[in-house]
Amino acid sequence: MNAKGFAAHSATDPLQQFAFERRAPRSNDVVIDILYCGVCHTDLHLARNHGGFTLYPIVPGHEIVGRVRAVGENVTRFKVGDMVGVGCMVDSCQHCQPCLKGWEQDCVEGSTFSYNSVDRQDGTITYGGYSDAIVVRDKFVLSLPDGLDPAAAAPLLCAGITTWSPLVHWNVGAGSKVAVIGLGGLGHMALKLAKALGADVTLFTRSTGKEDDAVRLGADHVVLSNDPEQMKAVAGRFDVIIDTVPYDHDVNGYMPTLAVEGVLVLVGYMGPLSTPVNAGSVVRGRRAISGSFIGGLRETQQMLDFCGEHGIVSDVEIIPIQKINEAYERMLKSDVKYRFVIDMASLKA
Amino acid sequence: MNAKGFAAHSATDPLQQFAFERRAPRSNDVVIDILYCGVCHTDLHLARNHGGFTLYPIVPGHEIVGRVRAVGENVTRFKVGDMVGVGCMVDSCQHCQPCLKGWEQDCVEGSTFSYNSVDRQDGTITYGGYSDAIVVRDKFVLSLPDGLDPAAAAPLLCAGITTWSPLVHWNVGAGSKVAVIGLGGLGHMALKLAKALGADVTLFTRSTGKEDDAVRLGADHVVLSNDPEQMKAVAGRFDVIIDTVPYDHDVNGYMPTLAVEGVLVLVGYMGPLSTPVNAGSVVRGRRAISGSFIGGLRETQQMLDFCGEHGIVSDVEIIPIQKINEAYERMLKSDVKYRFVIDMASLKA
Ligand SMILES: [Zn+2]
Ligand SMILES: [Zn+2]
Ligand SMILES: [Zn+2]
Ligand SMILES: [Zn+2]
Repeated sequence: MNAKGFAAHSATDPLQQFAFERRAPRSNDVVIDILYCGVCHTDLHLARNHGGFTLYPIVPGHEIVGRVRAVGENVTRFKVGDMVGVGCMVDSCQHCQPCLKGWEQDCVEGSTFSYNSVDRQDGTITYGGYSDAIVVRDKFVLSLPDGLDPAAAAPLLCAGITTWSPLVHWNVGAGSKVAVIGLGGLGHMALKLAKALGADVTLFTRSTGKEDDAVRLGADHVVLSNDPEQMKAVAGRFDVIIDTVPYDHDVNGYMPTLAVEGVLVLVGYMGPLSTPVNAGSVVRGRRAISGSFIGGLRETQQMLDFCGEHGIVSDVEIIPIQKINEAYERMLKSDVKYRFVIDMASLKA
Repeated sequence: MNAKGFAAHSATDPLQQFAFERRAPRSNDVVIDILYCGVCHTDLHLARNHGGFTLYPIVPGHEIVGRVRAVGENVTRFKVGDMVGVGCMVDSCQHCQPCLKGWEQDCVEGSTFSYNSVDRQDGTITYGGYSDAIVVRDKFVLSLPDGLDPAAAAPLLCAGITTWSPLVHWNVGAGSKVAVIGLGGLGHMALKLAKALGADVTLFTRSTGKEDDAVRLGADHVVLSNDPEQMKAVAGRFDVIIDTVPYDHDVNGYMPTLAVEGVLVLVGYMGPLSTPVNAGSVVRGRRAISGSFIGGLRETQQMLDFCGEHGIVSDVEIIPIQKINEAYERMLKSDVKYRFVIDMASLKA
């Protein structure tokens, strides 16, 4: 099956038009015409091989919204014309303990990611959502609720589930006190979701001028994390802190703002925390430093349904795919409110 | 009320005989003739002012077992002749949220510790269990179950509750897989308690030769943490790791041995973890680094009752108080199996 998209051919090449083959649909596959694809920081990191494990050519994109073009003979959950989403994963072993619990992101044999991953059946490299169509195993296709703007819903598939999963796992609801560190693609979704779940929500930020946006997005309070007085005023306050900072940073300053048994959840960074973590800050008050990585299929569908009920989508700036390299440059300067989404119609231009 | 004990008068002085005053019992106080007192690493650290906040003279000791000599007029839970215990705390505010939940160790206004602390009523400095008698508020006195050897039960008041609290908090029971890092005063109690709770128990150690003792104490398996093959063989295995290491150390090597949603609990160290913690190790699999600090009064009594039912005590070496300075030197070389306990009868010698 012929497909076209945008790919990087090396760490230094800009992304450019790329023609490639998608597999012929298997009996449990869904063929999706892609309408929109969100632009995640991971796309940029992998396109530029920041992790050192990029397989070129790479077609990024894992915040995919589209319409079903065709379904394999064993597919029952979807039919032609359905609006659907695809997130970070397109397959997993389906028989390990995490998979059986619905935690496909923690598949013991390794999940198959939507791009830059090896298909577990035919050994080909997966290509992501910066393209006109994709072929995905039915279990990894999500149903998009009616009434959500499809372009603005695309970032729910990564930024949405990444922040939803820890909020729900740590029982955020009415009466919870939640703080969010950082106001980017992940942070702005965390504010919206925590607020809709009923929490009292605080944004931690290092710069002034974000108050109006933060409040509009769901924050009840904004705390300047570099102001010792403001930090002291929220000592012992939060049940959950969602830390969306995507680079090495010092978490120690936030720990005393956790309530007893509170947890700081890293969702944006996977590298070493070079500032020594103070063991006393977790020993006293049984606080914890944890993390969360996207989310399983079942909880992703729950998140989409919740967003459908509450009318929650991402704040997006829609771009044609020809502007993707420029968008990457702007993302590096945090110059986006709060997620770029590619309108895939531009691919036909 | 006249008392005698052993005190250090400076960071470099050895402990020596010391005569001092205890307060006249208040209406809710219990006067206890001390029979035994365990020797905790904290005693040594504070006697030598390792934290920089020691108030001299210091009478250490917070693993106290004794017999009730007298009770104040409002005391109903104890009567003269009862066998009782006193642990790390002797008072707290009793009205903050943690206190109301039974987590007096996390009292927002600060717990009053058994020694080197300021009495919240009269402002005097508290003196600990290396002495012939102590006067303690009734709520902070524990009942010692019948049938436990009182000398060997003394370390339950600190080493016991410090390892019990996280095991129970993280729901360890039949079917749980628990690992313990380090085989000292805390570690040997963690093995015994985890085993009695029904867990499958593993000891992590860096040196060979501990297998027989570990198995006798309750370990089902012993893993050499500096053997990459052995570590790989337990990847993804443990629900809870109790980390009793009392100094700065690298926790990263243990994190992959946690199951998805597993937690490593620091109980022996409160300083900076100078080896950068790898954020990815908590983000993937929603693992956590947490900690635990002694335990509340209610759970301390539950632990003592559990130990009474299961016949669990510490492995101890009983010493006269005149050997306390020698005992400190041996503790620094880990030359004790597994806790020194002072026989307070020696104070009369
Ligand atoms: Zn993403
Ligand atoms: Zn699996
Ligand atoms: Zn102790
Ligand atoms: Zn309190």
